[in-house]
Amino acid sequence: CPTLVEAPLAQAEAEALAATLRVIADPARLRLISFIAAQPGSEACVCNLTAPVGLSQPTVSHHLKLLHDSGILDREQRGRWVHYSLRPEALDLLASVLSTGSA
Amino acid sequence: CPTLVEAPLAQAEAEALAATLRVIADPARLRLISFIAAQPGSEACVCNLTAPVGLSQPTVSHHLKLLHDSGILDREQRGRWVHYSLRPEALDLLASVLSTGSA
Repeated sequence: CPTLVEAPLAQAEAEALAATLRVIADPARLRLISFIAAQPGSEACVCNLTAPVGLSQPTVSHHLKLLHDSGILDREQRGRWVHYSLRPEALDLLASVLSTGSA
Repeated sequence: CPTLVEAPLAQAEAEALAATLRVIADPARLRLISFIAAQPGSEACVCNLTAPVGLSQPTVSHHLKLLHDSGILDREQRGRWVHYSLRPEALDLLASVLSTGSA
């Protein structure tokens, strides 16, 4: 991946990066990421994620699906509940694309 | 600024971060940032920014205003044209918020 400041982005590159950024550009999804990241093993059961963000389970599940589809969370079914875990490499990739290297 | 993975974000923190991310979560604005960053001195005249992104000047000016309002670009009037320059610290701050530190 080229960084944002390395060379002018082509339209297709800009659209792909914008699509990923749109997924995290949402308060509820940012809170879900930060809550999952703060749990032991950086993972959490859906059943424990509704209370912290104050949203219904269908709404939380929708947000988690978008985060999973974009590669930011892994998901694993265990018995009746789905568990989500952070894929740190996805956030680190975004961070390295945005970084100008001058910090 | 706390990083995203350090501790659960409060609603107000999540809203502020989401607002900044929404500004860059747009293909035209990402292309404008990357084009400006690639110019000598990381700055460009509005008059040179319409052709690379293939948009009208009012549309480009609107995108540039949003990027300026969110602190990602500086602006300076010189004669009849406005020049925009990159504020690398703004992108680096976003990068550091997103980074998990495990890369």
